[in-house]
Formats: sequence, C-alpha cells, structure tokens
Amino acid sequence: MNKRGFASDNNSGIHPSILAAIEEANQGHVTGYGEDIYTQKAIEKFKEFFGDDIDVYFCFNGTGANVLSISTLTNSFNSVFCPSTAHIMVDECGAPEKISGCKIIGIDTLNGKLFPELLIPHLHGFNFEHHSQPGIISISQATELGSVYRPEEIKALSELVHRHNMYMHMDGARLANAAVSLDLSFAEITRDAGVDALSFGGTKNGMLLGEAVVFFNKKLSANAKYFRKQSAQLFSKMRFVSAQFLAYFENGLWKENALHANNMARLLADEVRKLGIEITQEVEANGVFAILDDKIRDQLQKEYFFYPWNENRHEVRWMTSFDTREEDIIQFCKKLKELLNG
Amino acid sequence: MNKRGFASDNNSGIHPSILAAIEEANQGHVTGYGEDIYTQKAIEKFKEFFGDDIDVYFCFNGTGANVLSISTLTNSFNSVFCPSTAHIMVDECGAPEKISGCKIIGIDTLNGKLFPELLIPHLHGFNFEHHSQPGIISISQATELGSVYRPEEIKALSELVHRHNMYMHMDGARLANAAVSLDLSFAEITRDAGVDALSFGGTKNGMLLGEAVVFFNKKLSANAKYFRKQSAQLFSKMRFVSAQFLAYFENGLWKENALHANNMARLLADEVRKLGIEITQEVEANGVFAILDDKIRDQLQKEYFFYPWNENRHEVRWMTSFDTREEDIIQFCKKLKELLNG
Amino acid sequence: MNKRGFASDNNSGIHPSILAAIEEANQGHVTGYGEDIYTQKAIEKFKEFFGDDIDVYFCFNGTGANVLSISTLTNSFNSVFCPSTAHIMVDECGAPEKISGCKIIGIDTLNGKLFPELLIPHLHGFNFEHHSQPGIISISQATELGSVYRPEEIKALSELVHRHNMYMHMDGARLANAAVSLDLSFAEITRDAGVDALSFGGTKNGMLLGEAVVFFNKKLSANAKYFRKQSAQLFSKMRFVSAQFLAYFENGLWKENALHANNMARLLADEVRKLGIEITQEVEANGVFAILDDKIRDQLQKEYFFYPWNENRHEVRWMTSFDTREEDIIQFCKKLKELLNG
Amino acid sequence: MNKRGFASDNNSGIHPSILAAIEEANQGHVTGYGEDIYTQKAIEKFKEFFGDDIDVYFCFNGTGANVLSISTLTNSFNSVFCPSTAHIMVDECGAPEKISGCKIIGIDTLNGKLFPELLIPHLHGFNFEHHSQPGIISISQATELGSVYRPEEIKALSELVHRHNMYMHMDGARLANAAVSLDLSFAEITRDAGVDALSFGGTKNGMLLGEAVVFFNKKLSANAKYFRKQSAQLFSKMRFVSAQFLAYFENGLWKENALHANNMARLLADEVRKLGIEITQEVEANGVFAILDDKIRDQLQKEYFFYPWNENRHEVRWMTSFDTREEDIIQFCKKLKELLNG
Repeated sequence: MNKRGFASDNNSGIHPSILAAIEEANQGHVTGYGEDIYTQKAIEKFKEFFGDDIDVYFCFNGTGANVLSISTLTNSFNSVFCPSTAHIMVDECGAPEKISGCKIIGIDTLNGKLFPELLIPHLHGFNFEHHSQPGIISISQATELGSVYRPEEIKALSELVHRHNMYMHMDGARLANAAVSLDLSFAEITRDAGVDALSFGGTKNGMLLGEAVVFFNKKLSANAKYFRKQSAQLFSKMRFVSAQFLAYFENGLWKENALHANNMARLLADEVRKLGIEITQEVEANGVFAILDDKIRDQLQKEYFFYPWNENRHEVRWMTSFDTREEDIIQFCKKLKELLNG
Repeated sequence: MNKRGFASDNNSGIHPSILAAIEEANQGHVTGYGEDIYTQKAIEKFKEFFGDDIDVYFCFNGTGANVLSISTLTNSFNSVFCPSTAHIMVDECGAPEKISGCKIIGIDTLNGKLFPELLIPHLHGFNFEHHSQPGIISISQATELGSVYRPEEIKALSELVHRHNMYMHMDGARLANAAVSLDLSFAEITRDAGVDALSFGGTKNGMLLGEAVVFFNKKLSANAKYFRKQSAQLFSKMRFVSAQFLAYFENGLWKENALHANNMARLLADEVRKLGIEITQEVEANGVFAILDDKIRDQLQKEYFFYPWNENRHEVRWMTSFDTREEDIIQFCKKLKELLNG
Repeated sequence: MNKRGFASDNNSGIHPSILAAIEEANQGHVTGYGEDIYTQKAIEKFKEFFGDDIDVYFCFNGTGANVLSISTLTNSFNSVFCPSTAHIMVDECGAPEKISGCKIIGIDTLNGKLFPELLIPHLHGFNFEHHSQPGIISISQATELGSVYRPEEIKALSELVHRHNMYMHMDGARLANAAVSLDLSFAEITRDAGVDALSFGGTKNGMLLGEAVVFFNKKLSANAKYFRKQSAQLFSKMRFVSAQFLAYFENGLWKENALHANNMARLLADEVRKLGIEITQEVEANGVFAILDDKIRDQLQKEYFFYPWNENRHEVRWMTSFDTREEDIIQFCKKLKELLNG
Repeated sequence: MNKRGFASDNNSGIHPSILAAIEEANQGHVTGYGEDIYTQKAIEKFKEFFGDDIDVYFCFNGTGANVLSISTLTNSFNSVFCPSTAHIMVDECGAPEKISGCKIIGIDTLNGKLFPELLIPHLHGFNFEHHSQPGIISISQATELGSVYRPEEIKALSELVHRHNMYMHMDGARLANAAVSLDLSFAEITRDAGVDALSFGGTKNGMLLGEAVVFFNKKLSANAKYFRKQSAQLFSKMRFVSAQFLAYFENGLWKENALHANNMARLLADEVRKLGIEITQEVEANGVFAILDDKIRDQLQKEYFFYPWNENRHEVRWMTSFDTREEDIIQFCKKLKELLNG
C-alpha cells in the first residue's frame, strides 16, 4: 500500500464509485469522440447544474482545459490577466502562450485573489495596436493558495471586465472545494457571478482523469470543438471520461469528496498549529501553507514528499484530498513533532 | 450491452486485464507526473522491448504523441513529409502545424505507404532559407489504409532521410497490428530499421487511454519533457497510464489482442468477399476497405455506424479490434447480405 | 554600374519617380505608424482604384502581406488551399503555418493556376472537427509561372468558395503585370471577381519596398491592425511607404512599369526561341520559363545569376522588370548564343 | 514643411547622407535577399565595430529584430525576463509570445533598468517541466525611460544569467544614444559586457528603415536565417538597407546623430525645468519625461503631438532626434510657457 501524503490532491487515486462507473461503461462498442450515450448523459448533468444554455467540452487535463478556454475566448493579439500565482502563469510551461499566442500577464496579489483595484491599472491601451489588447481575466476558484472568492467578489470582477468588452475565465480545477467551502452551488459561483468560461476540474477530486470546459456564453464557443481537437485534447474513448462525470455527480459524490478534503485541511492546519507551526494562508479549501525550517522540511520530505512553495520564505504547501484520513494526519503530525523535538 | 461494430478500433472498450491493472494501481498515494514506481517499471518494460538507450514519454492520445514527436524532432522552419493519407495530415485538425509551427506536406501514395522514389522529388531546397527545410518524414505502421511496411522498406526510407540529415518518425498508433502481421518484434520494425522517434499506441489495442513517444536517439529528446508539458500532454495521475502499459506488455497481451484483431479483419474481408463485395486494399492489419453502393451503405449504417473513406470511389472502412468476435462478423455479414439481396 | 539580369524582378532597383517621392516626403516630422497625411492620401488612392468600402494595411514585404491576409481571414484550425507552386507554399519558409497556425495544402496544377475541378476534391470534412476546416483559397495573380487568371476564372473560384462559406485571397505581388496583360483594371480582377483580401505588391514593380493588404470585406478586417503589429509588419516611418504608393499610382507609373516588364518578357521569349530554346510556359506576364542544358545553364549563370526552376526538367526561370532594356536582352541572348554554339 | 515635434524619434525623417546612399545604390541589378556587395560591405562594417566572430541579420523593424533575437536564442518552453516597461513587453502587441511561443515576464523596475537583485527571485524552477524554463533576459540600451546601463551593470547581469546557462539579449533600438551618452564604443556596451544577441537599431537615428540582429555567440545563430525568413523579416531589395548602414557608419554619422539628439534632450529638459516643470527621469539619452497638468497637456498636444506616458502620474514623454533643432525647442517652450501662464 502506497502511503498517503500531502504533496498534492493529484497524488490520490480514483474514488471507488468512479472506478465502478468506468467498469460499468466498459460494455461493447460505442462511437468515439463523444458521440455516445454516456457523454450525452454527462452533458445533461452539467446542464442540471449550470442551466441549459451552455456548451461543454471534456478535456484530458487542467492545462488542456485552460488552453482550450483561453484559445476560444481570445485572439492571439489579446492579453490575459491573472494573479501571478495562477496555474496558467507558473505551472503550465507556457502552454497558454504557445497555443493561444496571447500575452499572459501575472498580477501580484496578497492571497492569490484578484481584485478590481489590482486589475484596473492594467486596463488601458484599448484600440492601440501596439499594445496586446486586454482580452480576458482568469481567476482560480479555489485559488492556488487555498483561498476562495465570494460570489460578490467574482461579480465585481466580471462587471468590470464586461464593461471593457473583455471576458472572464475561471480555472475551477478545485471548484468543488470552493463550492463546499462557501456552501454554494456551482452556478452561484460561476455563471450567476458573470463567469464566461469555466475549466471544471474532476481529476483532483476523485476522478482518474477528466476536466470539462463549460461555456456560459454560446456566442463564444462556436469554434471550441476545433480548438479542442487542434490542441490534442479530444479523447477517442470519451465514454470513459463521461462515465466518470456521471458518477461524480451521482448522489453528490463531488460534494462529499470536496467536503472531506476541506475538513481534512482544517484538521491538518489545527494539528500543525498545535506544534507551533505558523500557517501562512487562510485555510478555506484543501490547501495548507506553512512556514517550516529548511532542515525540518528536508527531513520530513524523506518520508512524505511535498512541494516547497516559496523557498525564500521557507513556506511549504500541503494538500489534502478526498481520500485523506484522520489517521494520515495524525501520523504526519507525529513525525513532524519528532523532528521538531529533534 | 452496446453492439460491437466496425467503425473504429477506438470504439472498443478496455481489455479486462488492463482495467484490472488500473484497479490494482489504485492504492494510496503516489507522486504525480510520472515520479512513481508504476511509471518507472513501465519504462523498464519499454527498454526490454526497445533497448536501454531510449527515452520514453507517455501521452494522452495519438495526436498528442505525434505533436510531441514532431515538436521535439524539428524546428519551426522545418517541413514534415508524410503520405497524404496520414493521420497527422488529415485527422488532427492541424495540430502539428499549430503546435510545432512546421509545414506538413502530404505525398500521394498508392496504399498509404511512402517509398524513396515518392519522397526524393521533395528533398531539395536544403540551406535555402526561402524554403521550409526538410526536417523529418513521418510514416504510419500499420498505415491508415491497413497496409504494413516491411523492415527493408523502412530501412530504405531511414537511410535516405539520414543521408540528408533528416529524421524519421513513425506513427505507431497500430504498431502492434503491424508487428504481429509481420511476425516481427517491435524493435525490428522501429529502431533496428532506423526510426528516430516512435508514437507507440495503446488506446486502439485495448487500453483505456495511453500512448508513448519513444526516442531512439537521446540527443534529440533532451527537451521532450518540456514540449510534452507545453502541449498539455503531461498526466498528473500518471500511474494509471503506466499500470496499463505494464498489463499491456504482461503475458504478451499486446500480441494476443493485435493478432486477434488482425485475424478478425481477414475473416471479415473473406466473408464480405463471399457476398461479392470488392476489397480495395490488401488486408495486412486490422482494417478492411471495400466498395459499397451508397444506398446499401446508408442502410447498413443505420445498424452499424462506420465511416465512409472515399466518397467519390464509394469506398468505406471497417476496422476490427481486440474484442471483435466471430459472431459479430457473422451478424454483420448477415445484415449486409439481406441488404444486398434487397 | 551593376549589370541588369533576369534573376528576379526584385533584383531591380527603385524607379526614379518613386525615389523622388521618398525625397519629397522627407520633410520635418510626421506622426509615425500611419497617422500621417501621406498614408491618408495613399489610402485614398487605393479607394479610387478599388472603391470606398475597403480597408488597406501597408506591410514591408510580400510574405508579411500574405501572412497578414491569411491570419486575418482564418482561425488556426482552418486550411488554406493554393497551387503547389504558390509563393506561400514554397517560398516563405513556413511563415503562414507558423504565424497563422493553419494547414496549407498545395494542389498540383498544370500552369500555376487553380481551377474549380482541382479544388472540389478537397472541399470536404466541413464541421468534422478532426479535419482542418477549409477556410480560404489563395491564388497568385500573375502566378509564379507567369500565367494570368481571366476574371471569369477568378469568379468561378470565388463563387465556389463563397458557396462553402470560405474566403478568397489573392497574392498580387505581380498584380500590375496581370492587369496590363489582360488590359483590365485592378478592381476587375480582384473585388469584382469576388476576391476577399488582396496582397497588393509594389516592390517587384519599381518600389524600394512596400506591399499592401486590401480587404474588400470589412467584416473580415476588424482585427487586421492587431495582426499586422503582432506579425512585425507595422512600419514606424510609414510615410516613406505611403509616399511611394502615391508616386506608384501617379500618372499611371504602375501601368507603365508593368507594361514594359511584360513587353520585355515577350521580347526575351521571342529572342531565345530564335536560338532554339524551348519555352515551357505561356508568357503572359513578366516571367519566361525555358529548358536549358545544365552545362549551358552553369556557364550562363557565371555572368548572369538566375534561378533553376525545376532541376529534374532542366527548367530555368528568367524574369524581366520595369528597368529591363532591350539592350540587356540582346546582350544576354548574345552570350547565350555563344554558349550554345560552344 | 511638417513641423518638428517631440512625439518620437521615429517621427523624424531620413538623414540626407542616408538618402544619398540609397540613391547611390540604385544602380542596375543586384542579387536579392542580401547576396549583394552592399550587404557584404555593411556586414564588414559591423565586424569592424564588433569583431570578426559575429553573425549579422538585417531586419525591417525593431519588433522584427527583437522577435528574431528571441526566437533564435530560445525554445518555445523558455521564459524571457525583461523590465515591465520593455518594448517587447508593452509595445509589440504580443509578437514575441506569438512567434517564439515563449512566456515573457515583465519585472517592475525603478527606471527601466534591470538589476541582478530584481532578477534573482525569478531564477528558479530549472529542470522543473511545469515551469517555463528561464531562457534569456532582454534589456534595452538606452532604456524606454531614457536611462542608460553602465558596462559593469550589464556585466553583472550577463554573468548572472550565464551562470544559469541563460542568454542575454539587448534591445539596442537606441544603442547609439547609449554609446554616446557613455562615451563608449558599441562593443564595450554589448559583446564586451557579455551580451549574446543584440537588436541594433538604425531607424530611430536617421535611417529610412533598418535594424540588425548581431549574434556574438555563433553557436546560437546557426538557424537565424530561417527564423528571419519565417518571421517575414527578409528584405528582397536588401541592398537598400545595407547601403543605409554603410552611410550610417561612414564618418561617424551614427555618433553625430545620436550626440545631437542627446544634447537636444538635455537642452529641452533644461528649458522646461526653467518653466517649473518637473522632470521625472534622469536625462541620459534622448528622452525627457515630465509631469504635466492634464489640461496643459491637452492644449499643447493640439500643436505638438506627443504621447502620455503614465496617465495616473500625469507623466508625459518627449523624444528628441537627430534632426531636432534648438529653434524647435525654443518654439515648443514658448508655446508651453504661454499655456502655463494661462
């Protein structure tokens, strides 16, 4: 048995119900590339959550979903604004720039969240051909720093960008964690708040793999199917992603998984705080950021792989997931305590 | 139960042993993005087949593997030569051009196979900056027309292109079908024959999803990991592709599946020939190409979805797969016979 | 004095009236990037020729103008069809693919001219996301083989492509040569015949440098200014291109230059024919294609640089230009005769 | 006569000696695309300034030169660091991103100059495939804010980046202004200080048009000619750029022009200071940045077009050029004084 750790929510495996759904869909032949009944049903499920007037495109991974979103919402001469900690800015090896051709501009924030006053100074140069034309903003919900946007914060941003004829993308790789954190529906923190396109994550919350791009503005998505294929994100045996999404939505599995992960993050934060560890970010989703002495960190990493976050600040990141158990946290803290007592 | 048909080998599902391997790998946490024991073992397996001096990069799908191969082997000012029927030419919505920046030039062939005499007229303009520099050729093994290259045919091409300081890519989405057709090892029809980079397919021969790019020239692959990430082909929960490859190679499953698919194609060809249907391509792998009256075709498609291949010639394509059963062929031919007898 | 030869119409210099116009515009300061009175006037001149409802964008060179045209008319998932001898296919080092992201498909022709029956077999796969979506065709007027399209030939193509919701680009690097060859106006062989966007050449017909992209469909050109800047084709001291265009149109200089070049081509063809040389293409513009023994060719090239066209066929290309003099032809033929007489 | 103003050094025209050189080169035919004697001589001149072991590629404009430099020095998965005020960051409509595929990261600076301590926090993620690989830095000499790097400042940066196996690009659109400001040679502030590739500007200092990319590391430039062509920067009638460079270097014209422009900037700064205007940046080259009441600015712009620089700070930019005359400054200040006195 591989030990559970706190390196990333994608170090977890597949939720048993998701795997069962794959198994169940593994019957005979169905047409490829999404022309199958599983995909049709899965899209219907998305419509139950987000309303009928949407377009949904399944992708392999989060980078693929973000690239598809950006390519579809922009022209190559546009700029994309995002927090400087955004996944599209620091964790995608320049895929958005290369595939969309756009300029991506990272804006420094306090906690991974963009606010109108941070964005406004960048909203200039409209119609001036020397300047990449402000095209979209991209915000992550939950953010890469474990913080969560309130609906009114999202609305304030979307109203601002729409006034400038720009669009709003949300990277929802951890949307479920944000929704349960706020106790709000998916729609309330996306389309109702003015989001135009959403990368909806499944992989980090119990799926084998699978993300979806959801467009809330169908005028924008007419070409999405071509951009998906041209960015190598069209899955031939699509039913096996679609079946996962069906299981993901069934009986609130998405909610159960995300709620559990969030609860485990709070527990982890509480437990390490008891050991005198400083927690640097508010724990609103499933991430815990902490200050850790480099020596302690190195020793702890021998048993538990995890990522340093900001080496200058000696900050590390721990993530919980749907399958984190209290016992995992207890063992981890026990080890950490030993090291601290050195 | 979804009916088995002959539309594509990707309309099939997952081989039970592959699915079992996914299930078995679904234990606890492992590091993401390929830093796990399953991936390490799977790469070892590839080395058993291809030799130690290789680099292996797993990808989501065939388009992704081809794009990674091309991006890694070329600069944007290169040209890529392939048969005009190649998947990279007609079935990837321009992904290779967009992501690599290269010019892709399709060469008309008789049966999907490129030969030196067809290629030679294109090998000019070297060092002439106005001209896209001949960079690589890409051949499919088996081809999109169900034909198979003999090792000496591959060698003739690789020697030609290497003499021009070009490289050779093989699209092996159906490499297993070619290997069993020739009764040769993977190595004999790839690295031994001078191939520099190979897209090694798994999805079409029983995997849920999973392709690999294998580089036989490690000088060329130093940057492959960045190109994979930048083209959104790096899987976070990589163990679930790696575990599939392990099962795929275990006990010769790849061979059993491909052999079966090829046998079924021959059976299908034999059976439809008995009905007076003209078979247009030699049946060397798992594809059968036939002339079918448009009206018959339309009626048959109501029960069995499949693709027209060349509408002007009234040519259609039928593919068999690892899970095709004799009974499926018998039912299909029965239906076809009924239609033919009007 | 550099000897006049027949290598290319771009081996010629600047027409004295063009140079005088540059000198005259060299007075004090004007706003850069086209916000000046010379550019305003030059665009007015284009409107006199092509009608008011056009958009005009000046570029540095022909590749730049073609890339701007293609980028503006397409999305990256489109395909571009052109004769396999087109400049965009063989002489731009893959710039159109790299910058537009499109697939460029060359179609073999007899004389550099595309006809509906050659194009029709390629017009399929619409709405099928696996296939690059047929987006535009690009034809050269005059062609790279010295042939010229009649207006009805252009119309036949434009009607075909418009029926498929595609657009039509014309590479008019030698548009003036075509217009005088047909004794028709610019408009009659472009917008009146259904062309949507035109690369209008100046450099090859007496300008220092300068091309223009003219859009006849303003719905298409809304983003052209951004694509021009993003492809590095926006000239800061724009007045010096604009002033050239003003002189180019003044007193029919464009016509005088092109007429002269065409006449010289006919003279050259007549003279070399007298020497027993076979002319391989009809001489409709300013190019002469001929069969020349390799040894003779090599010797002749020592005194007169020119390009082999098709080495397999021993075909060479000679171009005349606005400044070719009868005497140049006489000297050239004299030398050729000497060589032929051994 | 168009009035001389202070909007930009590219609002100026062509120096008479440069124009004379164009005229002189306008004799007969020469081979295109740089295979001519003028280009050969011009490159020799560059070697006199920079040493023999260089590669030189002429381009149309500054954006083209920067794009060529970046494309040649990087792979698409690299990142490019520059001041957030850099031309490549704010004035090229995303051309570097689109054509090179790289991520461009702007770093905030005090005066447009990058220093090691500003860069160091960005130098991480090496070999980590999720992260765009730090590839090059690009600094402007003189900067877009009129400041100038001392050789030791450049060396400190180049040593830092070379230690990380990165390269250093210099945008020298105003290199001449920097050289005369420092009273140093071109080589001392480029290759001797560790620069790997230089965009060498001509347009802003008296040429009609013409920039050059100079590579000081020939291992890096092997593919530059293809990247130049593929980015549509190869000029057919190259002699007319080359002849300009010859005149530019002849008798120190470059120096005379730049010295004059710089002197005029200092004079302008002195004169406006006398009117109580605050100068916001040190005047080291040919730019003057000042605080100007919005109302005064609007009125002044009616007679003299110029660009606001930072609207929030009420900062404007005035540029002098080789043809600015003392009288122009006196007239400008007279007008400004009138407005200030209301």
